[in-house]
Amino acid sequence: MSSFWKSNITLSVFGESHGAGIGIVIDNLPPGERIDTDEIRFFMSRRAPGQGSTSTPRKEADMPSIVSGVHNGYTTGTPLTAFIANTDTHSSDYSNISKLVRPGHADYTGAVRYNGFNDVRGGGHFSGRLTAPLVFAGSITGQILERRGIYTGAHIEQIHNIKDKRFDPMGVSREEIIKLRHKKFPVLNDKKTEVMIEDVNKAREAGDSLGGVIECIVTNVPAGIGSPVFEGLENSISQLVFGIPAIKGIEFGAGFGVAKMLGSQNNDEFYVDERGYVITKTNNHGGILGGISSGMPIVFRVAVKPTPSISKPQKTIDIKNMTNEELEIHGRHDPCIVPRAVPVVESAANIAVLSHMMNYPNFV
Amino acid sequence: MSSFWKSNITLSVFGESHGAGIGIVIDNLPPGERIDTDEIRFFMSRRAPGQGSTSTPRKEADMPSIVSGVHNGYTTGTPLTAFIANTDTHSSDYSNISKLVRPGHADYTGAVRYNGFNDVRGGGHFSGRLTAPLVFAGSITGQILERRGIYTGAHIEQIHNIKDKRFDPMGVSREEIIKLRHKKFPVLNDKKTEVMIEDVNKAREAGDSLGGVIECIVTNVPAGIGSPVFEGLENSISQLVFGIPAIKGIEFGAGFGVAKMLGSQNNDEFYVDERGYVITKTNNHGGILGGISSGMPIVFRVAVKPTPSISKPQKTIDIKNMTNEELEIHGRHDPCIVPRAVPVVESAANIAVLSHMMNYPNFV
Amino acid sequence: MSSFWKSNITLSVFGESHGAGIGIVIDNLPPGERIDTDEIRFFMSRRAPGQGSTSTPRKEADMPSIVSGVHNGYTTGTPLTAFIANTDTHSSDYSNISKLVRPGHADYTGAVRYNGFNDVRGGGHFSGRLTAPLVFAGSITGQILERRGIYTGAHIEQIHNIKDKRFDPMGVSREEIIKLRHKKFPVLNDKKTEVMIEDVNKAREAGDSLGGVIECIVTNVPAGIGSPVFEGLENSISQLVFGIPAIKGIEFGAGFGVAKMLGSQNNDEFYVDERGYVITKTNNHGGILGGISSGMPIVFRVAVKPTPSISKPQKTIDIKNMTNEELEIHGRHDPCIVPRAVPVVESAANIAVLSHMMNYPNFV
Amino acid sequence: MSSFWKSNITLSVFGESHGAGIGIVIDNLPPGERIDTDEIRFFMSRRAPGQGSTSTPRKEADMPSIVSGVHNGYTTGTPLTAFIANTDTHSSDYSNISKLVRPGHADYTGAVRYNGFNDVRGGGHFSGRLTAPLVFAGSITGQILERRGIYTGAHIEQIHNIKDKRFDPMGVSREEIIKLRHKKFPVLNDKKTEVMIEDVNKAREAGDSLGGVIECIVTNVPAGIGSPVFEGLENSISQLVFGIPAIKGIEFGAGFGVAKMLGSQNNDEFYVDERGYVITKTNNHGGILGGISSGMPIVFRVAVKPTPSISKPQKTIDIKNMTNEELEIHGRHDPCIVPRAVPVVESAANIAVLSHMMNYPNFV
Repeated sequence: MSSFWKSNITLSVFGESHGAGIGIVIDNLPPGERIDTDEIRFFMSRRAPGQGSTSTPRKEADMPSIVSGVHNGYTTGTPLTAFIANTDTHSSDYSNISKLVRPGHADYTGAVRYNGFNDVRGGGHFSGRLTAPLVFAGSITGQILERRGIYTGAHIEQIHNIKDKRFDPMGVSREEIIKLRHKKFPVLNDKKTEVMIEDVNKAREAGDSLGGVIECIVTNVPAGIGSPVFEGLENSISQLVFGIPAIKGIEFGAGFGVAKMLGSQNNDEFYVDERGYVITKTNNHGGILGGISSGMPIVFRVAVKPTPSISKPQKTIDIKNMTNEELEIHGRHDPCIVPRAVPVVESAANIAVLSHMMNYPNFV
Repeated sequence: MSSFWKSNITLSVFGESHGAGIGIVIDNLPPGERIDTDEIRFFMSRRAPGQGSTSTPRKEADMPSIVSGVHNGYTTGTPLTAFIANTDTHSSDYSNISKLVRPGHADYTGAVRYNGFNDVRGGGHFSGRLTAPLVFAGSITGQILERRGIYTGAHIEQIHNIKDKRFDPMGVSREEIIKLRHKKFPVLNDKKTEVMIEDVNKAREAGDSLGGVIECIVTNVPAGIGSPVFEGLENSISQLVFGIPAIKGIEFGAGFGVAKMLGSQNNDEFYVDERGYVITKTNNHGGILGGISSGMPIVFRVAVKPTPSISKPQKTIDIKNMTNEELEIHGRHDPCIVPRAVPVVESAANIAVLSHMMNYPNFV
Repeated sequence: MSSFWKSNITLSVFGESHGAGIGIVIDNLPPGERIDTDEIRFFMSRRAPGQGSTSTPRKEADMPSIVSGVHNGYTTGTPLTAFIANTDTHSSDYSNISKLVRPGHADYTGAVRYNGFNDVRGGGHFSGRLTAPLVFAGSITGQILERRGIYTGAHIEQIHNIKDKRFDPMGVSREEIIKLRHKKFPVLNDKKTEVMIEDVNKAREAGDSLGGVIECIVTNVPAGIGSPVFEGLENSISQLVFGIPAIKGIEFGAGFGVAKMLGSQNNDEFYVDERGYVITKTNNHGGILGGISSGMPIVFRVAVKPTPSISKPQKTIDIKNMTNEELEIHGRHDPCIVPRAVPVVESAANIAVLSHMMNYPNFV
Repeated sequence: MSSFWKSNITLSVFGESHGAGIGIVIDNLPPGERIDTDEIRFFMSRRAPGQGSTSTPRKEADMPSIVSGVHNGYTTGTPLTAFIANTDTHSSDYSNISKLVRPGHADYTGAVRYNGFNDVRGGGHFSGRLTAPLVFAGSITGQILERRGIYTGAHIEQIHNIKDKRFDPMGVSREEIIKLRHKKFPVLNDKKTEVMIEDVNKAREAGDSLGGVIECIVTNVPAGIGSPVFEGLENSISQLVFGIPAIKGIEFGAGFGVAKMLGSQNNDEFYVDERGYVITKTNNHGGILGGISSGMPIVFRVAVKPTPSISKPQKTIDIKNMTNEELEIHGRHDPCIVPRAVPVVESAANIAVLSHMMNYPNFV
């Protein structure tokens, strides 16, 4: 199901890569929220292709058309729908692919799931292009959160063997987050930019691709948001994050690092600070305990696999004739999807946090 | 909401650690499934406390009472409810804790979320004890899956700095899985058993605790199970897995390892084997592509944090008086929760896989 | 599915008439709500059998046991579970029924739905006894609503050919509602009590049964509660009301009477009263327009079919041998379920209204 | 929330009457279903305005554009989205209405619900125009059901004081249903056509409007579809039916007529017919017992209120200035919505039945 539901919000993502278009319906947003379309355009441009040597030269239209749910610049509270028409599609590039399932893609699993009736052109409904509506929703929800002081930022923590430094889990300022958003290649340590880009270019030239890690932080989420067991913040963020193709892992706070830690190292001690606020001295818990926000920054990291579309020849099967074949993928593909995935990860966080916040009487 | 949805399986976990009892309602299971209570008892005993030096000496009753949904030994199809009475509880052990929030626990976040009205004794609804109903559900769903040839196994991949070897992601036999289930300390490489146990004992003696990693495999899931975007297998497994307290990360297949891989390394090539089956040559995708099963084993790993209850003195706050205090936790606690969490992780996998399989006409 | 979900609340009803017991889990209630068990006992006694000649002489325990979710007399906010043990069950009364499907019951449809694996004793999960957990939930939610000034009342509007008068749809006082609740036979016009009871007794003596109509009113629901299209108050109330066995129709406000009306008769004109409140001059809309409360009383009526268990011989089939047979139902049955269904209908209204109110920031 | 659920079908209706357009996303339809667009066009034309003296002369585009989910004429299984652009809208007709709330409409309740931010032009998201996407979904689901032999028909049972005869609840042939669909004014007794139309015209000339009753039948639904308590067929059909503006009541089978019946009259006796099929001798239960289909036709009736937009002057309030005013509604409105609502009611039935059937292994 391409739908997600929470206590107070429903999303329906629709569309196929090479069909008429793609879009999203967001049901039950709070009414009366001002929508800044320049901000949406900017946010979406961060995910858009054609931005440099690390991404596909395909072009996308600037701005989705808002079909419903916004009136005179404010959310109405009724379903908000955005539609993005597909224009720059070259179906011919994918002609031989429809029989030869691409390794690392959902061509095979989608064909089995849908008895061969799904639209396979460009990945169809499984295309990375379907993250554009998610980013639209992430921009809308982010604007609502920012109006309440909540900011979400993300950066490339790793590409291949090159690592950026990590966020300070104790907090990142609004300014740092804004600055990061305006970087074409969002890393914290700018010295890593060129080495990472070179590494990506090297992979591209070799007809190959690279994966990486994205780190995300959400600041100023009030304590007490989320619910135990199946509806905690970790559950919701991960349910949304795995809606992004290519994500193969997620960890919160110290994440897999907890495996090597002693309890006395991993436990974050509480204290009341001079302002009377409750704080923890460290943030190994990533701002979430028992599924519920602690008031500390929410921090998580996701693993992004290398773009499965590579031009190197690969072995695969012809799904119609059930024969073993060789496949060469041509067409335009990102040698590394990580930079463009950064705002998508922020979007998943925004949607999850807003959907939980709407359960609380003090939201408005 | 202008959205409408129907459903196919529902779980409701209830209860508090020191209240009358805990339990679960599982709604809409397939009817006519034989329920083997010995199998449930065995499965639950793997999670039960009091099994050795690595776990708490607390005792739990052998078997939950099945209150509804099973008649003459078979599921009726109507809600299946299990209830586990709380017996061996020592509330006095927790008396001073109700004011002093325990680091690493949900005491503070729960208090904020519920305005101080939640039952904090022994962690209340946030207690690790609430995983017992999950394991009950995991046993029920596992029996249904095994009848269709689907087997789930899990082992301790890591405790502190000591690592077990990994499952062969290409497949593990039913016999290996069964054998693993009968190990008191489920590791693949038996040479690691003693070193791990020693390490845990050392932590216990130091009043400390240890974390680790659990690896889980589900074999023989047919290709084509799961749905794109928000309802894929990764989304559902992770939503359920984060219902287990102490889990801070999850990764599928090569997981975070994909960050360092080239696309040509990470892509799993397809081929048709001599029997005419579609197989991949490697299984970096962990049996899931586009949220949908590929027919290869589903493989995932979860990070388990060190038990937050340690007897070493810790700094924390008195939540009533908002003062900074020191806390010493007495009572009976696992120095390492990893071994007992193994069947809980299997349970999350079983529930997720069964709930998705029930969408398919060829299920029965 | 015996589960219902809304933006902010989940119910799971479980159990079978002749199994270990029945109960309910109510997830995500507001924390800190005082629970008055005397009030629950009183509310449930109104539905309990054995109250007079119009009802079955079967006995039920006084009070469900609250298993979780209430601590020191207040809701914790975590799942509230109630359990009612089955005690006074005579399975032998139903022995021949398991083969002969009872007309008007779910014996046949349940057997087909569950491939013959459902528990048929006393109706199993389809038994009217399953409304006891609903009434428990109705009492809990009603207490929360009453603390906010919202009162729900219901009465027998009709039994067979005898009609009570209707509520004044413009409003009923708290005192009238309380008075009605304390009537053993809740009608507005007390002169109808005896004639109705006589009519029921006549049916009972003839080995037959009677149906009727129940009218329900909810006062002081603030305007603006509910959502358009699929999640309006009418949608939710009716979804819950049809969870009560024997209900075959529901109408809001003027209901089926609208068919004969002109628009100018049916439209309720708005005006601002002397206090500055917005009121309608009439209440044909039953307090709901576009799925959303108008601030006028919510008024609806439900049709209750005659108890299908009658002692008159009936033709039916033997479902095992697929032969045509004759059936005589012995055992203890209500000749008219209408009086006992009154608090069940109130409960459905309470649950629906509370679940919608929890979406609003001004709830607490 | 300590509850977890999965899903099998989701609808999201979006749009406002005078915005860019309206539409629907239908998620998780079965793949490989042929979509007949002529059939959709025909089905939607039955709801379309401008068909005669009983309906508004407004025009609507012939056919929604299918944006996703259909490829080469077959459903893909991924979200099916339809979009209908708004063209023939005269916002000026509604200019003074934005302040003066229209009696019988959701203008007032919508304004309170959404703090005045909802789009009120032409009713906005509450407009009857939003039933067009529902009819689209009804046509799609109907085509899928008909391929399995399941046919849905509906007719005008009553307008004002004039009654058509009722369906034979024991069954209606496919031919009768098809014939009914092709009637411009769908009644069973053609002698009633002219009297009804005259009555509507009389109301229109008087600046008034009329209500009525629609009866719907679904034939050949196999026994065993639906689930107890909250997810029975009655629950789902009514939840969907109350998504149609103007519906104020629903009854199944004998409906409110059960109130006057004896149990021995209302109970439908079972028998095995000469073909070995299980049948009931009468169908007072409307094909549903315990929420589950019995194999007999599903029969229900809905009450439709008179169109609230009438040109007669009405008292109401100015919601901005909170003053009492008089309102005259001009513009183009149906004097009786009943004929156009017939396919909308069929659509609600189709969606409900298909969504339940998809739970069954023998569906395909």
